[in-house]
Amino acid sequence: MTRHFEEELDQVKQKTLRMGSLVEDMVERAVTSLVDRDSQLAEETIAFDEKVDHLEVEIDGDCLRLLALQQPAAGDLRFITTAIKIITDLERMADQAVNISERAIELNEEPQLKPYIDIPIMSQLSQKMLRDSLDAFVRKDVVLARAVIVADNRVDALKNQVFRELLTFMMGDTATIPRAIRLLLVSRYLERIADHATNIAEMVVFLVEGRNIRHAAQQAS
Amino acid sequence: MTRHFEEELDQVKQKTLRMGSLVEDMVERAVTSLVDRDSQLAEETIAFDEKVDHLEVEIDGDCLRLLALQQPAAGDLRFITTAIKIITDLERMADQAVNISERAIELNEEPQLKPYIDIPIMSQLSQKMLRDSLDAFVRKDVVLARAVIVADNRVDALKNQVFRELLTFMMGDTATIPRAIRLLLVSRYLERIADHATNIAEMVVFLVEGRNIRHAAQQAS
Repeated sequence: MTRHFEEELDQVKQKTLRMGSLVEDMVERAVTSLVDRDSQLAEETIAFDEKVDHLEVEIDGDCLRLLALQQPAAGDLRFITTAIKIITDLERMADQAVNISERAIELNEEPQLKPYIDIPIMSQLSQKMLRDSLDAFVRKDVVLARAVIVADNRVDALKNQVFRELLTFMMGDTATIPRAIRLLLVSRYLERIADHATNIAEMVVFLVEGRNIRHAAQQAS
Repeated sequence: MTRHFEEELDQVKQKTLRMGSLVEDMVERAVTSLVDRDSQLAEETIAFDEKVDHLEVEIDGDCLRLLALQQPAAGDLRFITTAIKIITDLERMADQAVNISERAIELNEEPQLKPYIDIPIMSQLSQKMLRDSLDAFVRKDVVLARAVIVADNRVDALKNQVFRELLTFMMGDTATIPRAIRLLLVSRYLERIADHATNIAEMVVFLVEGRNIRHAAQQAS
Protein backbone atom coordinates (compact mmCIF):
# COMPACT_ATOMS: atom_id res chain seq x y z
CA MET A 1 0.00 0.00 0.00
CA THR A 2 1.47 3.32 -1.05
CA ARG A 3 1.50 6.57 0.88
CA HIS A 4 -0.41 8.03 -2.06
CA PHE A 5 -3.17 5.48 -1.61
CA GLU A 6 -3.59 6.35 2.08
CA GLU A 7 -3.90 10.03 1.20
CA GLU A 8 -6.50 9.40 -1.48
CA LEU A 9 -8.48 7.12 0.80
CA ASP A 10 -8.41 9.82 3.47
CA GLN A 11 -9.72 12.31 0.90
CA VAL A 12 -12.66 10.02 0.15
CA LYS A 13 -13.44 9.95 3.88
CA GLN A 14 -13.22 13.73 4.20
CA LYS A 15 -15.39 14.33 1.14
CA THR A 16 -17.99 11.84 2.38
CA LEU A 17 -18.12 13.66 5.73
CA ARG A 18 -18.46 16.97 3.88
CA MET A 19 -21.28 15.57 1.75
CA GLY A 20 -22.94 14.32 4.94
CA SER A 21 -22.68 17.70 6.56
CA LEU A 22 -24.23 19.39 3.49
CA VAL A 23 -27.13 16.93 3.61
CA GLU A 24 -27.54 17.51 7.35
CA ASP A 25 -27.74 21.25 6.65
CA MET A 26 -30.40 20.63 4.00
CA VAL A 27 -32.53 18.62 6.44
CA GLU A 28 -32.13 21.31 9.12
CA ARG A 29 -33.08 24.08 6.68
CA ALA A 30 -36.01 22.14 5.23
CA VAL A 31 -37.59 21.66 8.66
CA THR A 32 -36.79 25.27 9.66
CA SER A 33 -38.55 26.46 6.49
CA LEU A 34 -41.62 24.60 7.78
CA VAL A 35 -41.41 25.68 11.44
CA ASP A 36 -40.58 29.33 10.66
CA ARG A 37 -42.99 29.36 7.67
CA ASP A 38 -40.11 30.60 5.50
CA SER A 39 -40.80 29.54 1.90
CA GLN A 40 -37.81 31.48 0.61
CA LEU A 41 -35.58 29.23 2.72
CA ALA A 42 -37.44 26.19 1.35
CA GLU A 43 -36.67 27.32 -2.23
CA GLU A 44 -33.01 27.78 -1.36
CA THR A 45 -32.91 24.30 0.15
CA ILE A 46 -34.37 22.79 -3.02
CA ALA A 47 -31.78 24.62 -5.14
CA PHE A 48 -29.00 23.28 -2.89
CA ASP A 49 -29.70 19.68 -3.93
CA GLU A 50 -27.65 20.13 -7.10
CA LYS A 51 -24.46 20.64 -5.05
CA VAL A 52 -25.05 17.32 -3.30
CA ASP A 53 -25.62 15.58 -6.65
CA HIS A 54 -22.33 16.96 -7.97
CA LEU A 55 -20.45 15.86 -4.88
CA GLU A 56 -21.86 12.34 -5.22
CA VAL A 57 -20.60 12.09 -8.81
CA GLU A 58 -17.21 13.45 -7.73
CA ILE A 59 -16.74 10.99 -4.84
CA ASP A 60 -18.00 8.14 -7.02
CA GLY A 61 -15.31 9.03 -9.56
CA ASP A 62 -12.65 9.23 -6.84
CA CYS A 63 -13.60 5.75 -5.61
CA LEU A 64 -13.50 4.30 -9.11
CA ARG A 65 -10.07 5.78 -9.72
CA LEU A 66 -8.81 4.31 -6.45
CA LEU A 67 -10.14 0.89 -7.44
CA ALA A 68 -8.67 1.09 -10.94
CA LEU A 69 -5.24 2.49 -10.20
CA GLN A 70 -4.39 1.28 -6.71
CA GLN A 71 -5.76 -2.26 -6.67
CA PRO A 72 -6.55 -2.09 -2.97
CA ALA A 73 -6.42 -5.15 -0.70
CA ALA A 74 -9.57 -6.86 0.58
CA GLY A 75 -10.29 -4.60 3.58
CA ASP A 76 -9.75 -1.33 1.72
CA LEU A 77 -11.66 -2.70 -1.25
CA ARG A 78 -14.75 -3.25 0.88
CA PHE A 79 -14.29 0.16 2.48
CA ILE A 80 -14.34 1.81 -0.95
CA THR A 81 -17.34 -0.14 -2.27
CA THR A 82 -19.15 0.75 0.98
CA ALA A 83 -18.34 4.43 0.40
CA ILE A 84 -19.86 4.12 -3.09
CA LYS A 85 -23.08 2.83 -1.54
CA ILE A 86 -23.11 5.34 1.31
CA ILE A 87 -22.97 8.35 -1.00
CA THR A 88 -26.04 6.97 -2.79
CA ASP A 89 -27.86 6.98 0.55
CA LEU A 90 -26.67 10.52 1.26
CA GLU A 91 -27.92 11.72 -2.10
CA ARG A 92 -31.35 10.21 -1.41
CA MET A 93 -31.49 11.83 2.01
CA ALA A 94 -30.99 15.14 0.22
CA ASP A 95 -33.95 14.24 -2.04
CA GLN A 96 -36.05 13.79 1.10
CA ALA A 97 -34.99 17.24 2.31
CA VAL A 98 -36.23 18.54 -1.05
CA ASN A 99 -39.55 16.74 -0.49
CA ILE A 100 -39.89 18.31 2.97
CA SER A 101 -39.18 21.75 1.48
CA GLU A 102 -41.87 21.24 -1.17
CA ARG A 103 -44.46 20.27 1.43
CA ALA A 104 -43.33 23.25 3.58
CA ILE A 105 -44.02 25.65 0.71
CA GLU A 106 -47.52 24.18 0.31
CA LEU A 107 -48.21 24.24 4.06
CA ASN A 108 -46.92 27.80 4.45
CA GLU A 109 -49.66 28.98 2.09
CA GLU A 110 -52.38 27.93 4.54
CA PRO A 111 -53.00 28.70 8.23
CA GLN A 112 -50.80 26.58 10.48
CA LEU A 113 -52.71 23.48 11.58
CA LYS A 114 -50.92 23.06 14.90
CA PRO A 115 -47.61 23.94 16.59
CA TYR A 116 -44.90 21.70 15.17
CA ILE A 117 -43.36 19.85 18.12
CA ASP A 118 -42.60 16.24 17.24
CA ILE A 119 -41.44 16.98 13.69
CA PRO A 120 -38.48 19.15 14.82
CA ILE A 121 -37.55 16.43 17.33
CA MET A 122 -37.70 13.78 14.58
CA SER A 123 -35.51 16.04 12.46
CA GLN A 124 -32.89 16.50 15.18
CA LEU A 125 -32.78 12.77 15.86
CA SER A 126 -32.43 11.98 12.15
CA GLN A 127 -29.66 14.54 11.74
CA LYS A 128 -27.76 13.06 14.67
CA MET A 129 -28.22 9.55 13.21
CA LEU A 130 -26.83 10.78 9.90
CA ARG A 131 -23.81 12.40 11.56
CA ASP A 132 -23.12 9.40 13.80
CA SER A 133 -23.48 6.86 10.97
CA LEU A 134 -20.82 8.68 8.93
CA ASP A 135 -18.51 9.07 11.95
CA ALA A 136 -18.98 5.34 12.56
CA PHE A 137 -18.03 4.71 8.92
CA VAL A 138 -14.82 6.73 8.79
CA ARG A 139 -13.71 5.41 12.20
CA LYS A 140 -15.04 1.88 11.59
CA ASP A 141 -16.76 2.27 14.96
CA VAL A 142 -19.23 -0.62 15.36
CA VAL A 143 -20.45 0.54 18.78
CA LEU A 144 -21.52 3.90 17.37
CA ALA A 145 -23.07 2.19 14.34
CA ARG A 146 -25.17 -0.03 16.60
CA ALA A 147 -26.29 3.03 18.59
CA VAL A 148 -27.59 4.55 15.32
CA ILE A 149 -29.59 1.39 14.61
CA VAL A 150 -31.14 1.52 18.09
CA ALA A 151 -31.94 5.25 17.73
CA ASP A 152 -34.10 4.42 14.72
CA ASN A 153 -36.71 2.99 17.10
CA ARG A 154 -37.20 6.44 18.65
CA VAL A 155 -37.81 7.96 15.23
CA ASP A 156 -40.32 5.22 14.47
CA ALA A 157 -42.11 5.85 17.76
CA LEU A 158 -42.32 9.57 16.99
CA LYS A 159 -43.61 8.81 13.50
CA ASN A 160 -46.43 6.75 15.06
CA GLN A 161 -47.16 9.49 17.57
CA VAL A 162 -47.39 12.11 14.79
CA PHE A 163 -49.69 9.77 12.86
CA ARG A 164 -52.07 9.30 15.82
CA GLU A 165 -52.19 13.02 16.55
CA LEU A 166 -52.89 13.94 12.93
CA LEU A 167 -55.57 11.28 12.76
CA THR A 168 -57.36 13.03 15.66
CA PHE A 169 -57.28 16.32 13.76
CA MET A 170 -58.60 14.72 10.58
CA MET A 171 -61.40 12.84 12.34
CA GLY A 172 -62.42 15.98 14.22
CA ASP A 173 -62.53 18.37 11.27
CA THR A 174 -62.37 17.24 7.64
CA ALA A 175 -61.12 20.70 6.61
CA THR A 176 -57.79 19.79 8.21
CA ILE A 177 -57.26 16.67 6.09
CA PRO A 178 -55.15 18.13 3.25
CA ARG A 179 -52.81 19.89 5.70
CA ALA A 180 -52.68 16.89 8.04
CA ILE A 181 -51.70 14.61 5.15
CA ARG A 182 -48.89 16.96 4.12
CA LEU A 183 -47.58 16.90 7.69
CA LEU A 184 -47.93 13.13 7.71
CA LEU A 185 -45.79 12.99 4.58
CA VAL A 186 -43.17 15.26 6.18
CA SER A 187 -42.93 12.83 9.11
CA ARG A 188 -42.50 9.96 6.63
CA TYR A 189 -39.72 11.80 4.79
CA LEU A 190 -37.90 12.29 8.10
CA GLU A 191 -38.42 8.62 8.87
CA ARG A 192 -36.84 7.76 5.52
CA ILE A 193 -33.84 9.96 6.33
CA ALA A 194 -33.45 8.02 9.59
CA ASP A 195 -33.81 4.77 7.62
CA HIS A 196 -30.99 5.80 5.29
CA ALA A 197 -28.80 6.53 8.32
CA THR A 198 -29.73 3.09 9.64
CA ASN A 199 -28.78 1.56 6.28
CA ILE A 200 -25.39 3.27 6.50
CA ALA A 201 -24.92 2.01 10.08
CA GLU A 202 -25.78 -1.54 8.98
CA MET A 203 -23.23 -1.29 6.19
CA VAL A 204 -20.61 -0.21 8.74
CA VAL A 205 -21.34 -3.29 10.86
CA PHE A 206 -21.11 -5.45 7.74
CA LEU A 207 -17.87 -3.72 6.75
CA VAL A 208 -16.23 -4.31 10.12
CA GLU A 209 -17.73 -7.63 11.21
CA GLY A 210 -18.61 -9.15 7.85
CA ARG A 211 -22.09 -9.92 9.17
CA ASN A 212 -25.38 -8.83 7.64
CA ILE A 213 -27.53 -7.60 10.52
CA ARG A 214 -30.41 -6.25 8.50
CA HIS A 215 -33.78 -7.37 9.81
CA ALA A 216 -37.45 -6.62 9.35
CA ALA A 217 -37.68 -4.34 12.40
CA GLN A 218 -35.63 -1.69 10.62
CA GLN A 219 -37.81 -1.32 7.56
CA ALA A 220 -39.65 1.83 6.68
CA SER A 221 -43.40 1.60 6.94
CA MET B 1 -9.29 -10.11 -19.69
CA THR B 2 -9.56 -13.81 -19.04
CA ARG B 3 -12.26 -16.21 -20.15
CA HIS B 4 -12.83 -16.88 -16.46
CA PHE B 5 -13.54 -13.19 -15.84
CA GLU B 6 -16.17 -13.08 -18.60
CA GLU B 7 -17.89 -16.09 -17.08
CA GLU B 8 -17.93 -14.64 -13.59
CA LEU B 9 -19.20 -11.30 -14.88
CA ASP B 10 -21.96 -13.13 -16.71
CA GLN B 11 -22.86 -14.91 -13.47
CA VAL B 12 -23.23 -11.56 -11.71
CA LYS B 13 -25.61 -10.47 -14.47
CA GLN B 14 -27.65 -13.65 -14.24
CA LYS B 15 -27.87 -13.50 -10.45
CA THR B 16 -28.91 -9.84 -10.57
CA LEU B 17 -31.68 -10.72 -13.02
CA ARG B 18 -32.75 -13.58 -10.74
CA MET B 19 -32.81 -11.26 -7.73
CA GLY B 20 -34.88 -8.80 -9.79
CA SER B 21 -37.34 -11.48 -10.73
CA LEU B 22 -37.73 -12.54 -7.06
CA VAL B 23 -38.41 -8.92 -6.09
CA GLU B 24 -40.91 -8.57 -8.94
CA ASP B 25 -42.70 -11.68 -7.62
CA MET B 26 -42.79 -10.18 -4.14
CA VAL B 27 -44.39 -6.96 -5.43
CA GLU B 28 -46.93 -8.95 -7.45
CA ARG B 29 -47.82 -11.14 -4.44
CA ALA B 30 -47.98 -8.20 -2.04
CA VAL B 31 -50.54 -6.40 -4.20
CA THR B 32 -52.44 -9.64 -4.86
CA SER B 33 -52.66 -10.19 -1.10
CA LEU B 34 -54.38 -6.80 -0.91
CA VAL B 35 -56.68 -7.19 -3.94
CA ASP B 36 -57.68 -10.80 -3.11
CA ARG B 37 -57.78 -10.02 0.65
CA ASP B 38 -55.42 -12.96 1.21
CA SER B 39 -53.47 -12.28 4.43
CA GLN B 40 -51.84 -15.72 4.29
CA LEU B 41 -50.22 -14.70 1.01
CA ALA B 42 -49.14 -11.43 2.62
CA GLU B 43 -47.40 -13.36 5.43
CA GLU B 44 -45.63 -15.56 2.89
CA THR B 45 -44.47 -12.48 0.99
CA ILE B 46 -43.01 -10.98 4.16
CA ALA B 47 -41.16 -14.23 4.92
CA PHE B 48 -39.75 -14.25 1.38
CA ASP B 49 -37.76 -11.08 2.03
CA GLU B 50 -35.00 -13.08 3.72
CA LYS B 51 -34.19 -14.86 0.43
CA VAL B 52 -33.70 -11.51 -1.27
CA ASP B 53 -31.44 -10.33 1.55
CA HIS B 54 -29.28 -13.45 1.22
CA LEU B 55 -29.01 -13.03 -2.53
CA GLU B 56 -27.90 -9.42 -2.10
CA VAL B 57 -25.07 -10.47 0.24
CA GLU B 58 -24.08 -13.24 -2.18
CA ILE B 59 -23.93 -10.98 -5.26
CA ASP B 60 -22.13 -8.30 -3.23
CA GLY B 61 -19.51 -10.92 -2.33
CA ASP B 62 -19.21 -12.06 -5.95
CA CYS B 63 -18.62 -8.47 -7.08
CA LEU B 64 -15.98 -7.90 -4.41
CA ARG B 65 -14.16 -11.09 -5.41
CA LEU B 66 -14.21 -10.00 -9.05
CA LEU B 67 -12.76 -6.62 -8.10
CA ALA B 68 -10.08 -8.15 -5.87
CA LEU B 69 -8.93 -11.04 -8.04
CA GLN B 70 -9.49 -9.93 -11.60
CA GLN B 71 -8.52 -6.26 -11.50
CA PRO B 72 -11.02 -5.34 -14.21
CA ALA B 73 -10.46 -2.51 -16.68
CA ALA B 74 -12.32 0.80 -16.41
CA GLY B 75 -15.54 -0.18 -18.20
CA ASP B 76 -15.97 -3.49 -16.38
CA LEU B 77 -15.01 -1.82 -13.13
CA ARG B 78 -17.87 0.66 -13.43
CA PHE B 79 -20.22 -2.14 -14.46
CA ILE B 80 -19.37 -4.05 -11.27
CA THR B 81 -19.66 -1.04 -8.94
CA THR B 82 -23.01 -0.27 -10.61
CA ALA B 83 -24.15 -3.84 -9.93
CA ILE B 84 -23.22 -3.34 -6.25
CA LYS B 85 -25.48 -0.27 -6.14
CA ILE B 86 -28.31 -1.87 -8.11
CA ILE B 87 -28.65 -4.82 -5.74
CA THR B 88 -29.06 -2.33 -2.89
CA ASP B 89 -32.00 -0.80 -4.77
CA LEU B 90 -33.46 -4.26 -5.40
CA GLU B 91 -33.21 -5.14 -1.73
CA ARG B 92 -35.06 -1.93 -0.81
CA MET B 93 -37.77 -2.64 -3.34
CA ALA B 94 -38.30 -5.94 -1.54
CA ASP B 95 -38.64 -3.96 1.73
CA GLN B 96 -41.41 -1.95 0.08
CA ALA B 97 -43.18 -5.18 -0.91
CA VAL B 98 -42.99 -6.14 2.78
CA ASN B 99 -44.53 -2.77 3.71
CA ILE B 100 -47.37 -3.32 1.21
CA SER B 101 -47.98 -6.79 2.67
CA GLU B 102 -48.15 -5.35 6.21
CA ARG B 103 -50.71 -2.73 5.17
CA ALA B 104 -52.64 -5.45 3.27
CA ILE B 105 -52.92 -7.54 6.44
CA GLU B 106 -54.29 -4.51 8.33
CA LEU B 107 -56.68 -3.57 5.52
CA ASN B 108 -57.92 -7.15 5.13
CA GLU B 109 -59.19 -7.04 8.71
CA GLU B 110 -61.72 -4.31 7.87
CA PRO B 111 -64.43 -4.01 5.20
CA GLN B 112 -62.97 -3.07 1.83
CA LEU B 113 -63.16 0.72 1.35
CA LYS B 114 -63.41 0.64 -2.44
CA PRO B 115 -62.56 -1.60 -5.39
CA TYR B 116 -58.81 -1.45 -5.97
CA ILE B 117 -58.30 -0.24 -9.55
CA ASP B 118 -55.40 2.20 -9.78
CA ILE B 119 -53.20 0.39 -7.26
CA PRO B 120 -52.95 -2.83 -9.36
CA ILE B 121 -52.15 -0.66 -12.41
CA MET B 122 -49.42 1.16 -10.45
CA SER B 123 -48.09 -2.23 -9.42
CA GLN B 124 -47.97 -3.58 -12.97
CA LEU B 125 -46.23 -0.44 -14.21
CA SER B 126 -43.68 -0.59 -11.39
CA GLN B 127 -42.98 -4.26 -12.04
CA LYS B 128 -42.40 -3.57 -15.72
CA MET B 129 -40.10 -0.67 -14.85
CA LEU B 130 -38.13 -2.97 -12.56
CA ARG B 131 -37.82 -5.67 -15.24
CA ASP B 132 -36.89 -3.18 -17.97
CA SER B 133 -34.33 -1.35 -15.83
CA LEU B 134 -32.46 -4.63 -15.17
CA ASP B 135 -32.67 -5.67 -18.82
CA ALA B 136 -31.29 -2.25 -19.71
CA PHE B 137 -28.45 -2.84 -17.23
CA VAL B 138 -27.31 -6.26 -18.44
CA ARG B 139 -27.62 -5.20 -22.10
CA LYS B 140 -26.30 -1.67 -21.48
CA ASP B 141 -29.39 -0.50 -23.38
CA VAL B 142 -29.71 3.29 -22.93
CA VAL B 143 -32.90 3.54 -25.00
CA LEU B 144 -34.69 1.10 -22.70
CA ALA B 145 -33.25 2.85 -19.63
CA ARG B 146 -34.63 6.18 -20.83
CA ALA B 147 -38.05 4.59 -21.42
CA VAL B 148 -38.06 3.49 -17.76
CA ILE B 149 -37.34 7.06 -16.65
CA VAL B 150 -40.24 8.36 -18.77
CA ALA B 151 -42.59 5.64 -17.45
CA ASP B 152 -42.05 6.99 -13.93
CA ASN B 153 -44.26 9.97 -14.85
CA ARG B 154 -47.23 7.63 -15.33
CA VAL B 155 -46.70 6.14 -11.90
CA ASP B 156 -46.52 9.64 -10.41
CA ALA B 157 -49.75 10.62 -12.18
CA LEU B 158 -51.49 7.53 -10.81
CA LYS B 159 -50.17 8.28 -7.33
CA ASN B 160 -51.75 11.76 -7.54
CA GLN B 161 -55.01 10.28 -8.83
CA VAL B 162 -55.12 7.80 -5.93
CA PHE B 163 -54.43 10.66 -3.53
CA ARG B 164 -57.30 12.81 -4.88
CA GLU B 165 -59.74 9.90 -4.81
CA LEU B 166 -58.84 8.93 -1.24
CA LEU B 167 -59.14 12.56 -0.17
CA THR B 168 -62.76 12.54 -1.40
CA PHE B 169 -63.49 9.44 0.68
CA MET B 170 -61.89 10.96 3.79
CA MET B 171 -63.67 14.31 3.42
CA GLY B 172 -67.01 12.55 2.86
CA ASP B 173 -66.83 10.16 5.82
CA THR B 174 -64.27 10.41 8.61
CA ALA B 175 -64.76 6.71 9.41
CA THR B 176 -62.87 5.93 6.19
CA ILE B 177 -59.74 7.89 7.22
CA PRO B 178 -57.65 5.07 8.77
CA ARG B 179 -58.27 2.77 5.78
CA ALA B 180 -57.78 5.57 3.26
CA ILE B 181 -54.42 6.46 4.81
CA ARG B 182 -53.27 2.83 4.63
CA LEU B 183 -54.19 2.76 0.94
CA LEU B 184 -52.42 6.09 0.47
CA LEU B 185 -49.30 4.53 2.01
CA VAL B 186 -49.59 1.51 -0.32
CA SER B 187 -49.62 3.86 -3.31
CA ARG B 188 -46.51 5.61 -1.91
CA TYR B 189 -44.70 2.27 -1.48
CA LEU B 190 -45.43 1.44 -5.12
CA GLU B 191 -44.21 4.88 -6.12
CA ARG B 192 -40.98 4.20 -4.24
CA ILE B 193 -40.56 0.90 -6.09
CA ALA B 194 -40.92 2.82 -9.35
CA ASP B 195 -38.42 5.38 -8.05
CA HIS B 196 -35.88 2.63 -7.36
CA ALA B 197 -36.35 1.34 -10.92
CA THR B 198 -35.81 4.92 -12.12
CA ASN B 199 -32.63 5.12 -10.02
CA ILE B 200 -31.38 1.92 -11.66
CA ALA B 201 -32.22 3.29 -15.13
CA GLU B 202 -30.34 6.51 -14.35
CA MET B 203 -27.32 4.47 -13.25
CA VAL B 204 -27.46 2.59 -16.58
CA VAL B 205 -27.38 5.89 -18.51
CA PHE B 206 -24.46 7.04 -16.34
CA LEU B 207 -22.72 3.69 -16.88
CA VAL B 208 -23.03 3.86 -20.67
CA GLU B 209 -22.82 7.60 -21.36
CA GLY B 210 -20.85 8.77 -18.33
CA ARG B 211 -23.48 11.50 -17.79
CA ASN B 212 -25.48 12.09 -14.65
CA ILE B 213 -29.06 12.71 -15.78
CA ARG B 214 -30.69 12.82 -12.39
CA HIS B 215 -33.00 15.77 -11.93
CA ALA B 216 -35.62 17.01 -9.52
CA ALA B 217 -38.57 15.76 -11.60
CA GLN B 218 -37.70 12.17 -10.73
CA GLN B 219 -37.78 12.54 -6.98
CA ALA B 220 -40.21 10.75 -4.76
CA SER B 221 -42.77 12.97 -3.11
